[in-house]
Amino acid sequence: MKTRVVIIGGVAAGPKIMAKLLRTKEFDCEINLYTEEDMISYSACGLPYFIEGLIDSPEKLIVRRPEQFEEQGAHVHLNKRCIKILPDEHKVLIQDTKTDIIQEVEYDKLAITTGARPVLPPIKNLHLKNIFTVRKVQDGIDIRNKMREEQTKKAVIVGGGYIGIEMLEAFYLNGIETHLIEMDNHILSIFDPEISDMIRDEILRMSNGKVKITTSDAVIAFEGDERVKRLITAKGEIIDTDMVIISAGVTPNTEIARAAGIELGVSNAIRVNNRMQTNIKDIYAAGDCTENFHLVSKNYAWIPLGSTANKEGRCAAINIAGQYDAFPGVLGSAVTRYDGFTISLTGLTETEAKKFGFDVISSTMTKKDRAGYMPSAENITIKLVADKRSKKILGAQAIGSGDADKRINTVASAIQADQTVDEFLHLDMTYAPPFSTAVDPLLSAALLINNKIYS
Amino acid sequence: MKTRVVIIGGVAAGPKIMAKLLRTKEFDCEINLYTEEDMISYSACGLPYFIEGLIDSPEKLIVRRPEQFEEQGAHVHLNKRCIKILPDEHKVLIQDTKTDIIQEVEYDKLAITTGARPVLPPIKNLHLKNIFTVRKVQDGIDIRNKMREEQTKKAVIVGGGYIGIEMLEAFYLNGIETHLIEMDNHILSIFDPEISDMIRDEILRMSNGKVKITTSDAVIAFEGDERVKRLITAKGEIIDTDMVIISAGVTPNTEIARAAGIELGVSNAIRVNNRMQTNIKDIYAAGDCTENFHLVSKNYAWIPLGSTANKEGRCAAINIAGQYDAFPGVLGSAVTRYDGFTISLTGLTETEAKKFGFDVISSTMTKKDRAGYMPSAENITIKLVADKRSKKILGAQAIGSGDADKRINTVASAIQADQTVDEFLHLDMTYAPPFSTAVDPLLSAALLINNKIYS
Repeated sequence: MKTRVVIIGGVAAGPKIMAKLLRTKEFDCEINLYTEEDMISYSACGLPYFIEGLIDSPEKLIVRRPEQFEEQGAHVHLNKRCIKILPDEHKVLIQDTKTDIIQEVEYDKLAITTGARPVLPPIKNLHLKNIFTVRKVQDGIDIRNKMREEQTKKAVIVGGGYIGIEMLEAFYLNGIETHLIEMDNHILSIFDPEISDMIRDEILRMSNGKVKITTSDAVIAFEGDERVKRLITAKGEIIDTDMVIISAGVTPNTEIARAAGIELGVSNAIRVNNRMQTNIKDIYAAGDCTENFHLVSKNYAWIPLGSTANKEGRCAAINIAGQYDAFPGVLGSAVTRYDGFTISLTGLTETEAKKFGFDVISSTMTKKDRAGYMPSAENITIKLVADKRSKKILGAQAIGSGDADKRINTVASAIQADQTVDEFLHLDMTYAPPFSTAVDPLLSAALLINNKIYS
Repeated sequence: MKTRVVIIGGVAAGPKIMAKLLRTKEFDCEINLYTEEDMISYSACGLPYFIEGLIDSPEKLIVRRPEQFEEQGAHVHLNKRCIKILPDEHKVLIQDTKTDIIQEVEYDKLAITTGARPVLPPIKNLHLKNIFTVRKVQDGIDIRNKMREEQTKKAVIVGGGYIGIEMLEAFYLNGIETHLIEMDNHILSIFDPEISDMIRDEILRMSNGKVKITTSDAVIAFEGDERVKRLITAKGEIIDTDMVIISAGVTPNTEIARAAGIELGVSNAIRVNNRMQTNIKDIYAAGDCTENFHLVSKNYAWIPLGSTANKEGRCAAINIAGQYDAFPGVLGSAVTRYDGFTISLTGLTETEAKKFGFDVISSTMTKKDRAGYMPSAENITIKLVADKRSKKILGAQAIGSGDADKRINTVASAIQADQTVDEFLHLDMTYAPPFSTAVDPLLSAALLINNKIYS
């Protein structure tokens, strides 16, 4: 008899599980995927670039269409929301979002891939028009349309995380006067404060006054009739605006999981073991709705990322199919950019490493990313963080107009392999003048931190 | 009493040793560096880009000037060639290249950093004018001047290694009709044959008929009176040309080392241990004149590279100063490009891995280097090589118009840390649409090879 696999959620991890199961020929299963949305398998990460105008059609963000799965024998159910999981009965309740009709669906194996949603901060009049969040393709279409209206001159972004910065780039490059407001002392507060400050300064420098950034202040109310016209901050600033993006963080969609007795962890994300199994038999979870194991801190963390969702989806599928796979965990490697200025990190920052009790030592180095005499050479700044006792590399942050991301991935690979600074500084990196310096900036940073460890 | 350190050779490793010793305050030494050239510390790797015209002045290739060292108390002697090492007497004989006067110089510690020189193949009339090799700054100036003469329309490059390809780029981008002739079956024969073929095809495609590549043929004679006019190949081809570049490989400058009883290894490069010590007490060697230990094959190899020269110079200096440092070895990571097309590798190719007795398995994958919907997305091709028994990654080759070099450094880091394919495919690489795909091409290649290992 076919194993009945039910997947709830259809953006990244869900379709990945489905695709992987369909390739697992030795596993005889019937797959049903339910999503409350009207499409599946799209690149939410691509939305800022669609809004910016780099991508002409939203269709391009779609990775796979329902028909592609249907052709292979899986079933995709759009506009169908899972409202309840009944673990003892191995059933889920699915409600049609248009007719409200509820059906019972039996499963042998259930995968929860419900993702995350934007947090809506407690701001008055959030219901006003032209206030947006960035999650679904339709959000992208609506934001782009509004931004391109002739009367749209000004925008406010609430929250300076990755999405906030990406939206800032999109608006700036479209000639919109944009004001970003961040509650924290720093934008991109997952970086160390002095690195965040460098990023902020660079964004402001590059934007020639077309962009404003306010930190340590919060929006408390929107004003306008029907449409948002202005907003008021806690410090009493009044800012006129034609549109608003709320990018104040995300929260996992785990209410139905919790209600079913599934254990949650950090930030209410679903706790899974390294086989993507929840605490309840036959129920798996993957993607943005799940907690992660951090390979450096050896603690749980919630770091929802598309790259991780894909890895977890693969792992879940293999285990659902009765085979064995273990996903070791994450470093939280991430990257974004602001108009050619790359912002990337992996592992722990100095701030985080101290929290976890490491004997932290760090080095920061600014250097050209390729031979200084090459016209394409640009600065990058690398901050390495290590543990003085074990000499292990704990993390790295790299920013700059040059090739920063390449260095982050190189050091991520070393951190994942548990390398010490002594081992890492001998790394045989490629060298040619158009690509790097004879002593790569990353190795210079490693030499610097090594000197500090031994001094 | 000060330790008398004598360094012979001044391009990369020699100045590195000098610089590092000068920073080692606790080591009281007198440093004398002798070079037969009229400058030190220049980027030979930058010469093709000076010739191409990306760099306006040859001065820019100079990393450090003799005066900078003199100011710090070291002594740099230009136009002074070492003609003999007398290990028993702890002396070297130095000959002035202008006056031929020979002097004796005593040392307590000697560092041989004599580098390598171009191989001159047995071709008739090699003495004709407008036949060049690419090693010294003056070579670069001469080649650039000749290339820019109005009557220069055609060039021939003898040898299709890295320098040959870099010179091909320089000539092609300067509108010179260029013919590259390679004796081997393939250009860039340090790559696997099918990858070499892809590189060749891509170079020819990009160059729209302005570039010719002949393999499996050798130049046997040049013709012309005074100046080279044409050449004849072993297969009887006659090719008219206005200038010729000989880039048929390099050989280490180790004749005086050999004469002094210093042990040589692969390709007559100086054998050193991991502290850069030769078999003779108090004599060290570093840079292109030394043999390397290959971290994957666990065999000696001769892979002269500027990045390695710097690492070895640092290691030699630390040990000369009486402290301890060990240089573990190399992967042979290297990169070059042809007009935006990146060519890079690390570790062993499939061909090499087979020679060393590994149970070789490989996967080759062509994929966009960033989200397919981003206008900046370009193809890269990655070939991964692994050992089926141990599952260790042995090497990688990455080429393409996209960001190939980033992936090579990432996998180099994993190879250096002795990672298996299973471990590597979980690597937390950064992801954002302008930088990569949700499943990075490198991880796709790792997944593919993993499937092969377990199938």
